[in-house]
Amino acid sequence: MAAGPVHERLAALELVDHHCHGAVTGDPDRAGFESLLTEGEAWPGVSPFDSPVGLAVRRHCAPLLDLPRHAPADVYLARRSELGAAEVNRRFLRAAHTGVFCVDTGYAPHRVTSPAELAEAAGATAYEVVRLEGVAEAVAAGGVEPDAYAQAFRTAAWEAVQRPGVVGVKSVAAYRTGFDLDPARPAPAEVTAAARRWLAGGGGRLADPVLVRHLLWTAVDLGRPLQLHTGFGDNDIRLHRADPALLTDWLHLTAGTIPILLLHCWPYQRQAAYLSAVFERVYLDVGLTLHHVGPARAGAILAEALEITPFRKLLYSSDAYGVAEFHHLGALAFRQGLAGLLQERLDADELSLPDALRLARWAGRDNARRVYRLPGGPADDG
Amino acid sequence: MAAGPVHERLAALELVDHHCHGAVTGDPDRAGFESLLTEGEAWPGVSPFDSPVGLAVRRHCAPLLDLPRHAPADVYLARRSELGAAEVNRRFLRAAHTGVFCVDTGYAPHRVTSPAELAEAAGATAYEVVRLEGVAEAVAAGGVEPDAYAQAFRTAAWEAVQRPGVVGVKSVAAYRTGFDLDPARPAPAEVTAAARRWLAGGGGRLADPVLVRHLLWTAVDLGRPLQLHTGFGDNDIRLHRADPALLTDWLHLTAGTIPILLLHCWPYQRQAAYLSAVFERVYLDVGLTLHHVGPARAGAILAEALEITPFRKLLYSSDAYGVAEFHHLGALAFRQGLAGLLQERLDADELSLPDALRLARWAGRDNARRVYRLPGGPADDG
Amino acid sequence: MAAGPVHERLAALELVDHHCHGAVTGDPDRAGFESLLTEGEAWPGVSPFDSPVGLAVRRHCAPLLDLPRHAPADVYLARRSELGAAEVNRRFLRAAHTGVFCVDTGYAPHRVTSPAELAEAAGATAYEVVRLEGVAEAVAAGGVEPDAYAQAFRTAAWEAVQRPGVVGVKSVAAYRTGFDLDPARPAPAEVTAAARRWLAGGGGRLADPVLVRHLLWTAVDLGRPLQLHTGFGDNDIRLHRADPALLTDWLHLTAGTIPILLLHCWPYQRQAAYLSAVFERVYLDVGLTLHHVGPARAGAILAEALEITPFRKLLYSSDAYGVAEFHHLGALAFRQGLAGLLQERLDADELSLPDALRLARWAGRDNARRVYRLPGGPADDG
Repeated sequence: MAAGPVHERLAALELVDHHCHGAVTGDPDRAGFESLLTEGEAWPGVSPFDSPVGLAVRRHCAPLLDLPRHAPADVYLARRSELGAAEVNRRFLRAAHTGVFCVDTGYAPHRVTSPAELAEAAGATAYEVVRLEGVAEAVAAGGVEPDAYAQAFRTAAWEAVQRPGVVGVKSVAAYRTGFDLDPARPAPAEVTAAARRWLAGGGGRLADPVLVRHLLWTAVDLGRPLQLHTGFGDNDIRLHRADPALLTDWLHLTAGTIPILLLHCWPYQRQAAYLSAVFERVYLDVGLTLHHVGPARAGAILAEALEITPFRKLLYSSDAYGVAEFHHLGALAFRQGLAGLLQERLDADELSLPDALRLARWAGRDNARRVYRLPGGPADDG
Repeated sequence: MAAGPVHERLAALELVDHHCHGAVTGDPDRAGFESLLTEGEAWPGVSPFDSPVGLAVRRHCAPLLDLPRHAPADVYLARRSELGAAEVNRRFLRAAHTGVFCVDTGYAPHRVTSPAELAEAAGATAYEVVRLEGVAEAVAAGGVEPDAYAQAFRTAAWEAVQRPGVVGVKSVAAYRTGFDLDPARPAPAEVTAAARRWLAGGGGRLADPVLVRHLLWTAVDLGRPLQLHTGFGDNDIRLHRADPALLTDWLHLTAGTIPILLLHCWPYQRQAAYLSAVFERVYLDVGLTLHHVGPARAGAILAEALEITPFRKLLYSSDAYGVAEFHHLGALAFRQGLAGLLQERLDADELSLPDALRLARWAGRDNARRVYRLPGGPADDG
Repeated sequence: MAAGPVHERLAALELVDHHCHGAVTGDPDRAGFESLLTEGEAWPGVSPFDSPVGLAVRRHCAPLLDLPRHAPADVYLARRSELGAAEVNRRFLRAAHTGVFCVDTGYAPHRVTSPAELAEAAGATAYEVVRLEGVAEAVAAGGVEPDAYAQAFRTAAWEAVQRPGVVGVKSVAAYRTGFDLDPARPAPAEVTAAARRWLAGGGGRLADPVLVRHLLWTAVDLGRPLQLHTGFGDNDIRLHRADPALLTDWLHLTAGTIPILLLHCWPYQRQAAYLSAVFERVYLDVGLTLHHVGPARAGAILAEALEITPFRKLLYSSDAYGVAEFHHLGALAFRQGLAGLLQERLDADELSLPDALRLARWAGRDNARRVYRLPGGPADDG
């Protein structure tokens, strides 16, 4: 609808989606689809279609299934089933016009596309992001003595990031303990004691504060970019403990080491922006939020995220999981939201067209290329 | 001023104001009126009329007293006195075009209208919400042994909610301790010990953390919808301890029980929206805030509150207390704010007209009807 | 660009900048200039020009150096050097059209203009604000016994505020401990014990919680307006501990004493607004933020800051430090942001023109005159 040179250039730009997941490969039934639409659960009498993301799907995804805009949920789901998951995924993933997907493979309660399958369906390149909690939990599940845990985890993580196509690691510490942790690297004896308690309980979900700290410090040692879930998520989060400002002491202690990518951030996007403005290695995105709020509010949230953020520090991610609608919606909301706010500033002569285009290109693609050292001509990097 | 189908339909809709208080029945003098305008106090040299709510009163209430828009405060107050409280209340309460008021009767430092008087003046129906701290404090005032307190409070609360017209309960735990409480149900011995300390001090204001927890768990046992003050209030609040995100552990522990209605929320409306999106029983409103910020900002705050909120989860309340101007202003700000943001999205083709009208009807009326099981045709519920 | 009566009147109004610092008197090289542009540091490969404040400088400052809008950074810096610091400072300080600067002289890692030099260059009046941490640290550096520290600091502070031209004091407690402190006045023995620890370590940066509390209570005793850094700053801040809501208990304990001026506040401007609405002596500004976000976002932040703030409670400050561009940009962003939001409300008939002009005059000048008892005709105060 909105138009102008920034919209056109952003529409033409192949994005780098630096954090997403796979799409389900089977055809979900209505209950299954609805449960994938929401970060909550599907509740009796409350359809997830009756939410901002539901409206956005009916508005912006229906046309890609050859339906009119705002098609009813029933019609939408019938047509989706008719086309089948493979065709639906192909359509949305291609519409996302995303050249690179960095796929977090550590969360997959459903059967979802592997990075290679996602790449194939999208006509794109996929890289992998290793979720460290999964690595640690696999080490426990494989059997390890408490005093060998630290080294075994380190080795397993190191081996995981050596795999071809791995470009970074991710932690869901926000879910496990939140960020109000002692920022210091735990002493080996502490780690062993904590591992003993954890393993004595059979391992499983890693949520011990000492082991979470140890995991974060192991990430530092790996030397790869570290994605951190912050802010918004499902009800397993304590939102106030996922405020990225709580990471400040840890960011000081880890100065000069790895890039830290703050994911999602909402409603703490201003706190994340502050960190990105004062710490050299800190980056942010507003993924996940973008498709949940839809294009109607993506611009408002990006405007907050960009109030003080250096232009090298904002990245794009969809954080899409499960339904390929979200890979498309995230990209659409990012493009429309960013183009809208840049065009408004152009119209007010608050920035020049070359600056607007450069900012858009950096946020949509080049910043991720730099952080993850992805292929891409240096000519694009100016 | 703004127009369009959504504005018209919202103007025609009889709202359910699911949380408000009475209006003073006497004629306040200037100092008295000014002290009712503000959540602070009336300070020397700083007129509460010189504030957003003061501007909103002069703009939107003066015409209902037959005065020009933006009438000066002196003129406004003189005319108000001339008309008399009964006529003033009648005019504003009718202008609110609210079909149902759910009245919190537990806060009345002034002589205010009873629910029946409010209903009569408004030409509406009134229900009652029981403030649990008031019940507990009455139990203490009536004389009770520490080891009988828990049962006496439970019985008194149960009797209170059996009264005709009572539709729910309310807690001001936010004011008494804030929400960073141990979420677990306190053991009987703990409650007795805490009651002993409280009663030994003569009872009075219930602010003991154990007794506040006990009160919240007693509310769960009552089985009625529970309204919780969150966020903005007078200076007795510690705002950061009234962040509803702090309730997350308690919401997990009480899963599957009563509806929880987060009142006011500002400036934590996004945190409240998150909870409403991930917990089945959580609802929110932005009452109190609406008239304090006025129509000029109500839309911006509603836009934040609605970023991710399922459309079944937003309710309307005025939280008006003391001056009937607020019952009117709350309704006006809600209607204009919501209509403005929906119309904007309609204009951008981000949602369809039927969806916009449904969302408005649900938020303004039907969601409250469902939660409180108020009369109202199921035909309205589609 | 935007026009209308409010823009014109704000453009004509000589502001009071109630909190700023000096401008460097020498000609910074590129690295030096860039390090002054950011609250972070200048990082390899990330130019501070590639940020909102960088765009604002190129857009709004270049024309004052006879360059086209959006001039490239290199061109800008070359022209700046060509003109020389004295001329550059004079141009920007005059363009700020600020009648009064209240200068915090306690932070000057560079050689910057004294208040008198700033006044001379600006054609304005300058007053001084005494930074209390600097006074305390000078007492320690001068040699003092632990049990004499409290009285020595009190005396030194009292003498400092007696100096001609001193209008208030400032604390950077937000940087040293944050605000989650015991709010009570520390007992003399506690202060002595804390001073003993501090002095035994050689004094230096005052960051002991007891001594910070003692400093804040000494400020109360001085009877002068107290400026408190809150929110946004460099990476020495823990943002979540600089939330002004954390001051609530202390504000209760100090009721009826000195004016408290909450500086910056972002991203907690709503929390600060709440405090200003419920505590008689609390004021706020959104300085520092204004030039960092630039005119493109200043209006949005002022709109949040003003949602519930009484109109006597908002002040203007630039918090400019180092480069005179910021004294200009702060004033420009304040004028454009405030005029834009007032004009929008005028256009919607949400307030009257006289009210809009009064609000602008109060926020831009008269509120500061009242708080600091600065000269200025009472005719301006209506």
